[in-house]
This record gives sequence, structure tokens and C-alpha cells, in this order.
Amino acid sequence: MSAEALYEMMRTQRAIRRLKSDPIPDDVMHRILTAASWAPSGGNQQPWRIVLVRDAAKKKALGDMYGALWEKFAAMYRKRFEGLSPEEQAKEERTIAAGDYLCAHFHALPAVAIFCFNPKMMAVTDAKQDRVSVVGGGSVYPAVQNLMLACRAEGVGCVLTTLLCQVEPDVKALLDMPEDWYTCAAVPMGYPVGGGYGPIKRRAAGELCFEDGWKTPLSL
Amino acid sequence: MSAEALYEMMRTQRAIRRLKSDPIPDDVMHRILTAASWAPSGGNQQPWRIVLVRDAAKKKALGDMYGALWEKFAAMYRKRFEGLSPEEQAKEERTIAAGDYLCAHFHALPAVAIFCFNPKMMAVTDAKQDRVSVVGGGSVYPAVQNLMLACRAEGVGCVLTTLLCQVEPDVKALLDMPEDWYTCAAVPMGYPVGGGYGPIKRRAAGELCFEDGWKTPLSL
Repeated sequence: MSAEALYEMMRTQRAIRRLKSDPIPDDVMHRILTAASWAPSGGNQQPWRIVLVRDAAKKKALGDMYGALWEKFAAMYRKRFEGLSPEEQAKEERTIAAGDYLCAHFHALPAVAIFCFNPKMMAVTDAKQDRVSVVGGGSVYPAVQNLMLACRAEGVGCVLTTLLCQVEPDVKALLDMPEDWYTCAAVPMGYPVGGGYGPIKRRAAGELCFEDGWKTPLSL
Repeated sequence: MSAEALYEMMRTQRAIRRLKSDPIPDDVMHRILTAASWAPSGGNQQPWRIVLVRDAAKKKALGDMYGALWEKFAAMYRKRFEGLSPEEQAKEERTIAAGDYLCAHFHALPAVAIFCFNPKMMAVTDAKQDRVSVVGGGSVYPAVQNLMLACRAEGVGCVLTTLLCQVEPDVKALLDMPEDWYTCAAVPMGYPVGGGYGPIKRRAAGELCFEDGWKTPLSL
């Protein structure tokens, strides 16, 4: 594969929240989950699991939880962009509308991948720093990203969500999860309702990178 | 691009610790950093930055810190596999030898990407759970994985390391980082000394995935 072909996947990896209820064929799903399995993890421990939820009652229960959290989140999110230009506000409103659509159709999704992790299988090297820890995520979110890139390549829409972590005990009970396993992401999956994947808007590398220290923007 | 071509990249994404000192051309580096910029993040905030370290004195300083941490880590890691079979022990020893090589050549690497993040730009939805937090990582490690897959596609070796987070205040001082930005990964980069990328060993998807709940392994 040329690098360019990989980049074409990455630069069109949109968050897709409007998803059809059409089933995802087992062979496609198997390839997507296998792509996740290839991701690097600390000490190659693969300290994550996926509970793939396709059962109607469980999808309904997750959707109800997600909807309640989304409603609060959307209200807060709306406040954040009150000061933006009308064009930017309209763009954010489209994102919220897509989130509303996701909530309304959560129960009908073909599948939701609930990513779980076990901290005992991780060397959390930033655990003692005086700020929120993130390093455990280094052994799970590469797998999440592999899964989402695989979805992109297969034409399956998806979006990385973490709101359900706020009600983790309820999710754990619903999915019969053991005590020492926790949740880190929920990825709704399905074929896109609209145009699906396409160009994304991101800051350019030059705005995100420094040369040797924070004082010098990187110019390549 | 076919999905198969993406999978070929992913299933050969080895951790590569034996890296040459040959420079990485600016156009290659620019494409790799741009691939990172395309990754999804919560609310599209892109709450991460990269300090690309190529200055000799700073690489030497980082290498000295890394080497001291690696020595302790390797001793601990060795204890963990004392009970394994001779074949498995030999495999782990090869990993340690590669890590030793990385330490010995750290100062001569063409580049080290230090990933930084700002928790104020993140909605850390698992902050109130009674376990180590990981969700902040959901907005940075997809970018790390994009960068590493781009390295794979360009034939540039790399490995995800987090040991330097243990001495974060020293790294922040070395790189003139602002108070509210922290470090989450250091990715040494360079062309491979040996064969480079190739097949990896991972648990199969069937061992990592469940169907609707923890009690039922997924069979697709």
C-alpha cells in the first residue's frame, strides 16, 4: 500500500452519528475487530476487551443512558459556543442535531462496541503526577483508533463516545462485567444515512507542532 | 484504497527500537505529523501538541533520563517473566536487548516526538470513577496511533514509550512547556537498523471480544 492511500483514509475519517439500522455482515465485523486486535499496547498486554452489543434490549438500555447524558452535555456544549459567529454556531448546531439523531436511533443501531480495560494489566507511568492520568489510555485508544479506521475502510460509520463512562457502574451491571474491568469508550457502528465519510476540519500540523521546545513553532 | 491494504499496514506495525541515526527528510516528517493532526478528539478540540526534538543536546538529555528509567523498568520486567518457558524468556530478552539498544542510541536518533496534552481542553468523563482515569487519553492516543501508522507506511521505525512521564517536571523544564500542558508519550523515530516492519503477535479478536455481555465469547 502506498502511504498516500493510508492518508486518504485518515483525512476522511469523519465522526458519523447518523447510522442506519442495516446489519453489518459478520465477515466485515470480524475484519474490523481484528484490526483493533493489531494495535500496540504497553508490554503487548492488550489490556482491553470489547463487548459487542447487538441484543435489542441491551442496546435500548444503553441508548436510554446515553440519551440522558447527551441531553445534559448538549446544553453545556451549546453554552460554550454562544459567542461564536452565526456560521460557526450553525456548524455546531449540526453536530448537536447529529448527536440527537444518534440518541433517537441508538436502540436500532446494528452494533455498539463497548471498550473495556483492566488497570492491573497496565503500567500507568503518570499515576503519581499531580494532574489527571491519561497514560492507561495509551494501551487502549490505539485499538479504538484501529477499529475506527477499519470502519472507515469498510464504509461502516462510527463515532468515538465516552459519555457512558459517567454511568459506568450501570454499564458494568448491564454487561456482566467483572469487578476489575472498566469502560473507556462506546463506539456506535452502522452504515451511514447520508454521504458518510469525507473531508474533515483540523488544525494543520504547523499549528500543533514545536521544534525542540515550546518557544519555536515547527516549520518543515 | 482497499481495506486490505490498510490491514496490511496494521498487522505489520511492529514496535521498532533499533533505529539508525540517518535523518528523516522534512517532507516525510511533514506527512507523518499531518497524519497525526487528522485524528479524532473529543469535541474536535485537538488537545495535544508535539514537541519534535532534533536538537543534539536535548536528545542527549532525554536519552539520559530515559536510560535511567529503562534500567529500573527492565529489571522489574525481567522478574515478571522468570516463570516463563525458555523460548518465551528468550523472546522477552530480545525485547529488552532492543530497549537497551534504544537507550544507547537515543542521543543519535533523528527525532523524538514528545506528545503533550492540556487537560483543560478535555471532557474527562471518567474523572469521578473510583479507579485510574484513562478517558483523557481518548483525545491524544488516536493521534499517536495515526502518527505511528504513518511511520509504518513511510518505512520509518518508531515505538510508543511512556516512561518519561515519570520525570515529567524535568521534561517540561527541558522543553520550556507551559504550566497547564503535560506529557503523555515519547515516540523515538528513525529508519530501522534491521528488517524493520513485519508480522506481529497478538491475541485473536475472538479472545478479546464478547457478545452482549462478559459471559459470552463473540463468535463471528
